Amino acid sequence: MDYVYGPGRNHLFVPGPVNIPEPVIRAMNRNNEDYRAPAIPALTKTLLEDVKKLFKTTTGTPFIIPTTGTGAWESALTNTLSPGDTIVSFLIGQFSLLWIDQQQRLKFKVDVIESEWGQGANLDELASKLAADRTHTIKAVCIVHNETATGVTNNLAAVRKLLDDYNHPALLLVDGVSSICALDFRMDEWGIDVALTGSQKALSMPTGMGFICASPKALEASKTAQSARVFFDWNDYLKFYKIGTYWPYTPSIQMLYGLRAALDLIFEEGLDNVIARHSRLGKATRLAVEAWGLKNCTQKEEWHSDTVTAVVVPPYIDSSEIVRRAWKRYNLSLGLGLNKVAGKVFRIGHLGNLNELQLLGCLSGVEMVLKDVGYPVKLGSGVAAAATYLQNSTPMIPSRI
Amino acid sequence: MDYVYGPGRNHLFVPGPVNIPEPVIRAMNRNNEDYRAPAIPALTKTLLEDVKKLFKTTTGTPFIIPTTGTGAWESALTNTLSPGDTIVSFLIGQFSLLWIDQQQRLKFKVDVIESEWGQGANLDELASKLAADRTHTIKAVCIVHNETATGVTNNLAAVRKLLDDYNHPALLLVDGVSSICALDFRMDEWGIDVALTGSQKALSMPTGMGFICASPKALEASKTAQSARVFFDWNDYLKFYKIGTYWPYTPSIQMLYGLRAALDLIFEEGLDNVIARHSRLGKATRLAVEAWGLKNCTQKEEWHSDTVTAVVVPPYIDSSEIVRRAWKRYNLSLGLGLNKVAGKVFRIGHLGNLNELQLLGCLSGVEMVLKDVGYPVKLGSGVAAAATYLQNSTPMIPSRI
Amino acid sequence: MDYVYGPGRNHLFVPGPVNIPEPVIRAMNRNNEDYRAPAIPALTKTLLEDVKKLFKTTTGTPFIIPTTGTGAWESALTNTLSPGDTIVSFLIGQFSLLWIDQQQRLKFKVDVIESEWGQGANLDELASKLAADRTHTIKAVCIVHNETATGVTNNLAAVRKLLDDYNHPALLLVDGVSSICALDFRMDEWGIDVALTGSQKALSMPTGMGFICASPKALEASKTAQSARVFFDWNDYLKFYKIGTYWPYTPSIQMLYGLRAALDLIFEEGLDNVIARHSRLGKATRLAVEAWGLKNCTQKEEWHSDTVTAVVVPPYIDSSEIVRRAWKRYNLSLGLGLNKVAGKVFRIGHLGNLNELQLLGCLSGVEMVLKDVGYPVKLGSGVAAAATYLQNSTPMIPSRI
Amino acid sequence: MDYVYGPGRNHLFVPGPVNIPEPVIRAMNRNNEDYRAPAIPALTKTLLEDVKKLFKTTTGTPFIIPTTGTGAWESALTNTLSPGDTIVSFLIGQFSLLWIDQQQRLKFKVDVIESEWGQGANLDELASKLAADRTHTIKAVCIVHNETATGVTNNLAAVRKLLDDYNHPALLLVDGVSSICALDFRMDEWGIDVALTGSQKALSMPTGMGFICASPKALEASKTAQSARVFFDWNDYLKFYKIGTYWPYTPSIQMLYGLRAALDLIFEEGLDNVIARHSRLGKATRLAVEAWGLKNCTQKEEWHSDTVTAVVVPPYIDSSEIVRRAWKRYNLSLGLGLNKVAGKVFRIGHLGNLNELQLLGCLSGVEMVLKDVGYPVKLGSGVAAAATYLQNSTPMIPSRI
Repeated sequence: MDYVYGPGRNHLFVPGPVNIPEPVIRAMNRNNEDYRAPAIPALTKTLLEDVKKLFKTTTGTPFIIPTTGTGAWESALTNTLSPGDTIVSFLIGQFSLLWIDQQQRLKFKVDVIESEWGQGANLDELASKLAADRTHTIKAVCIVHNETATGVTNNLAAVRKLLDDYNHPALLLVDGVSSICALDFRMDEWGIDVALTGSQKALSMPTGMGFICASPKALEASKTAQSARVFFDWNDYLKFYKIGTYWPYTPSIQMLYGLRAALDLIFEEGLDNVIARHSRLGKATRLAVEAWGLKNCTQKEEWHSDTVTAVVVPPYIDSSEIVRRAWKRYNLSLGLGLNKVAGKVFRIGHLGNLNELQLLGCLSGVEMVLKDVGYPVKLGSGVAAAATYLQNSTPMIPSRI
Repeated sequence: MDYVYGPGRNHLFVPGPVNIPEPVIRAMNRNNEDYRAPAIPALTKTLLEDVKKLFKTTTGTPFIIPTTGTGAWESALTNTLSPGDTIVSFLIGQFSLLWIDQQQRLKFKVDVIESEWGQGANLDELASKLAADRTHTIKAVCIVHNETATGVTNNLAAVRKLLDDYNHPALLLVDGVSSICALDFRMDEWGIDVALTGSQKALSMPTGMGFICASPKALEASKTAQSARVFFDWNDYLKFYKIGTYWPYTPSIQMLYGLRAALDLIFEEGLDNVIARHSRLGKATRLAVEAWGLKNCTQKEEWHSDTVTAVVVPPYIDSSEIVRRAWKRYNLSLGLGLNKVAGKVFRIGHLGNLNELQLLGCLSGVEMVLKDVGYPVKLGSGVAAAATYLQNSTPMIPSRI
Repeated sequence: MDYVYGPGRNHLFVPGPVNIPEPVIRAMNRNNEDYRAPAIPALTKTLLEDVKKLFKTTTGTPFIIPTTGTGAWESALTNTLSPGDTIVSFLIGQFSLLWIDQQQRLKFKVDVIESEWGQGANLDELASKLAADRTHTIKAVCIVHNETATGVTNNLAAVRKLLDDYNHPALLLVDGVSSICALDFRMDEWGIDVALTGSQKALSMPTGMGFICASPKALEASKTAQSARVFFDWNDYLKFYKIGTYWPYTPSIQMLYGLRAALDLIFEEGLDNVIARHSRLGKATRLAVEAWGLKNCTQKEEWHSDTVTAVVVPPYIDSSEIVRRAWKRYNLSLGLGLNKVAGKVFRIGHLGNLNELQLLGCLSGVEMVLKDVGYPVKLGSGVAAAATYLQNSTPMIPSRI
Repeated sequence: MDYVYGPGRNHLFVPGPVNIPEPVIRAMNRNNEDYRAPAIPALTKTLLEDVKKLFKTTTGTPFIIPTTGTGAWESALTNTLSPGDTIVSFLIGQFSLLWIDQQQRLKFKVDVIESEWGQGANLDELASKLAADRTHTIKAVCIVHNETATGVTNNLAAVRKLLDDYNHPALLLVDGVSSICALDFRMDEWGIDVALTGSQKALSMPTGMGFICASPKALEASKTAQSARVFFDWNDYLKFYKIGTYWPYTPSIQMLYGLRAALDLIFEEGLDNVIARHSRLGKATRLAVEAWGLKNCTQKEEWHSDTVTAVVVPPYIDSSEIVRRAWKRYNLSLGLGLNKVAGKVFRIGHLGNLNELQLLGCLSGVEMVLKDVGYPVKLGSGVAAAATYLQNSTPMIPSRI
């Protein structure tokens, strides 16, 4: 039943699903419970309160939906928009592409602003569109905060500023799947109307929970949005929030307790420390890539992602072979290049509950694989570059001082 | 973190989520994995094949969607129907009511056939409607196989027969949430077009997986159905089935391994033995209710459910008090009466991975609670009636002979 | 790998190993750790303090040894006595017999006071021996508090009183394996010099930890005791207690965390409530036995055990067949009759983390098995008797009021 | 309850307890069971057969005792020897010292052959003693195969050869705690009379099982050995082997299933592949130490251990500070220097279920710590040396080819 088991731990460095810490695995190790008995609502209440902290919102309303990121996207769109509504959406990689595909299939009119893969959102083009949209036909701007396929982080504050500059009332809908709880994310300060993420990313849980926060404006929009929806309907949740039982249908008991444990770990470390750790590991990874003489898929430093690094391989190498070999020889799981960058990049996910030595083990593995496939890397070079930075910047573990 | 823990095991007799067997809990006790590596598709392939056996279909196409029963409903409807389509739908209790509500909100024209709660689907009325529908405006007949709120099992073979008698092409969509894998269910033989269930019911897993099987006819319908959908879209699944990677988005690794273990247990026992066990426990429960001098909410024997028994309490007792007290004093979780029967019935769920002595423990608890709330029950009477039947009918555990 | 798995839960009613509560299973679900890092000594310190509370001692010194009850016995004897020393030891059943066998093989001179199996320790004979022992050649009195084979609880306070009456300095060594943490046990008040138990009994953990508490007098004796010992030597532990690292050799990390969880549960319920619960379940069991028209192996009420009931079967029935059949047909695990009472009694263990409905499920199973093997029991009779008592005496679960 | 938790995985590189693979953790995640029911003897039978394979013996008799390595030592000695018997015992480090201490306290006459810590057993001196012992007063030769404190592996074949050369009938008792299942070990071929190990070492389980194999000659000796013993007495086990119930007292159900899983993993990988993996990781570690410019505590290559490397630090550094800092800053658990080498060496354990990237992560951590404490290491140097070797020598994971 365990298929293809190798000796030792699997080194999981795909940008999701990520490593689950032991206390979360433990918390989920349990039988079912009656979710209508008092324990589950009491637990849920703490979860909803605490999830808001991850989004840095006090005014938002959180929804924890038993679904994936794709479902969270659908929830964000169908609760705030009506078929035929115009959306401006940025296409910068595979996940923004998939979201746009969803937007179109849900029958919105999508005005796509495309960038080369490896670049961030083209904000100049957004500015033009906002400037031109005197009648406010644009109902929403959709943006992926961190494009997981290319390792590009967009500047959300700048998007907000443009909307404010043009005094444009469009809703700002943000995919924070590979950013929230790992990158600097400020829902209230940046005026985000809907933000969302999934449990298997920086929260370091199994897949199965979509987290959505809606601003008061988004909630208002949900009252009149005409998109057909039931499973994803916020109003059903709000009805049960009022009653105090919280769930319009059966939640996963295990995931609820797992979330409690995940949140406890995050708050024990401190959310800002979690974000600083991601920044540290992201920088260390980029230093290794540089030391290997390879190019980061992300074209400018301002877009560098601290949760995933897409590494461009030389044209004579198939990046899929790197991923295959890493898994087959070193029990190392790396991310494939997707769609336009298939075969051209491989990805190192460095998000979630992860520490310095885990990353260095991964980097040493990448080096060996690079050599395996014929790239003339100097073994130890990337590790040395990363370790030099980490040895200077890693703090003591607070609970152990 | 464990809230309200009591000494000893919780006796979980709500009709879902139900008890998870240890081997399933064990199988799920694991870290995440890269779902794009070869192990997960290999595992998924066995799951899809084996899930079909639960539905007794060879021609159906299975979908395992990371959602709940409510999501599975939505998937069944949106993949086969277009807004404005006419549906005939039976209203016989809270869950059929909720499904009808969903059907209406998804913008289908729902022709509701209502029965008194406690009765099964009114098939005479269906016959009239089919007879009258010469132009075949009815696109689908929707029916809940086992209404969990009242403990009523509908006769699916009879529904099929009516459709055949009238040579009516309407799709037959069946909610098998509290029936599949517990009651006699024959997708192919009964000509069911879409059947569905959820993981936390007779499969005895955590909540989080909706299982849907679509007949070739339903699959054909999905090609032209105009309901907007992405997360629930079968076509996205089919695309990845063809590629052999199976998943349009990230599945829960833990639930996949859990499902493998759950299926292994079911096939080890034998699906027909599983169904026979439910029949045995259902009958034993009804004998106890009779011995207590209480009425079954189900009005005729033909509708008796082998997965849940709704027990009507005398008018001077509030059934919610029974549920509350069972939990607070005896660590026994019973099902509340819902909506129209709130306060009037309490429910004993007897589905999933459950055995005779667990049920007898529950029945002895119900007796004590009945006495607690002032009903003049003879302690031991229900247990005696149930045990007399069980002592005659329980087979040896095959692996132990 | 799971061998002989049956549907539903196993009903575990042997008098050890007993059911482990989920929070303990969860706490043990973990990787190894460096036991020399600060976390483990910090944890151990809390455990040693809290274990003393189970023994109701403030002056005793606790030892948690990675062994079983048999090892704990050996530790008690070899640390306090020298080969050739005279012991008075009571033989009342299989476990006292095994301890005496150990005492003899460890080369002590054992003066055995034998009772019929089903009777308690013969204290009159002890009185005579103490009276006659003017020169204090008796170095220790060894007694099993609760004889697990016959369900007999001895009166420790009375033993203490005799020693005091005769002003006899013999050490009082007590096997509390099936009593401590379940029956009234007062190490300090009853002047017990060494008391011991094992993790798989009332503490409701896996097997693997022996708990020993030594009085100051026993500790003093350990300084001069000449029995050869290393693994079981208290002095090695004391050396590491002083250093603050606590362990002379590698402990089981999992068992340490499991013990923490077990103790937390016990203190959450309240030790006195735990004991009251055992008293309640013991009495309920005896009422059932009476209702079945069967005899308790324990011959007088004063010896009735609240942790295990040995039920005498009619001569025409082989009690082993009852145990076999309970397991094979009802997934119910009962205790065999051992040695002298093999075939004549079966045992119902009712100790550890157990509640009323679990017991009633077990009793209903016993009834069915009795009928299976040809005993003319009235099904439901025992459950009715037990439930009548329990419905009157069971308190609300404090955390749920 | 989790004390001092840090982000990410703990990097556990003490030479025991070692990392437990997920399938073993999973297998142990279970409730207790009646160990007298048929499942446990059936399971035990497979375990006893398979444990022999780890020792490479077909003629030996295995004992699985719920104890630690210290208890296994005691079992080996007390079952084969009588108080006053003469033993020759090698003292080469802390663990051989502790065994000798035990031998003395168990009242054997111990003739100690001491070497400098960092050297192997002085076989010349053994030769002299055997030559001189015409009357065969030496009853046993006791040797630690792999001294965990110094990382020294002794040559057991050479010891056997000496005994044969002098035709000496002394029993050969071997501590294989940090060797069996990791180093080349051949009980039958090398004529070992008693060999032993513990579960938390190369078997990669929790602490709590001592494994002992006795040759026919050792078994014969146990019939007349006069050392007092009960808990550790092989004869009690043999009695229950004959009956087919196997256990003289309650085993840990969890450990039995864990052992089954551990053995399955070892045989799936192939025992010889497991040993080759240890050889590979051992060599890689030594290459790193060399690259750092540090000395291996082991003085000659012939004694190099493939399960633990003791690294000598420069005199101006306290090795304990390295261990402390590794844990506090990098969540890396290294082994302390013990006794004579306290403060002078730190130890890297590389045994058990471990792979290449885990080791490289550890080595990168050691480099950072070395720099932290003021040793002028070139970051990346050790990793480079190790990786260069590993990239050449690591095989594909067989199940993934």
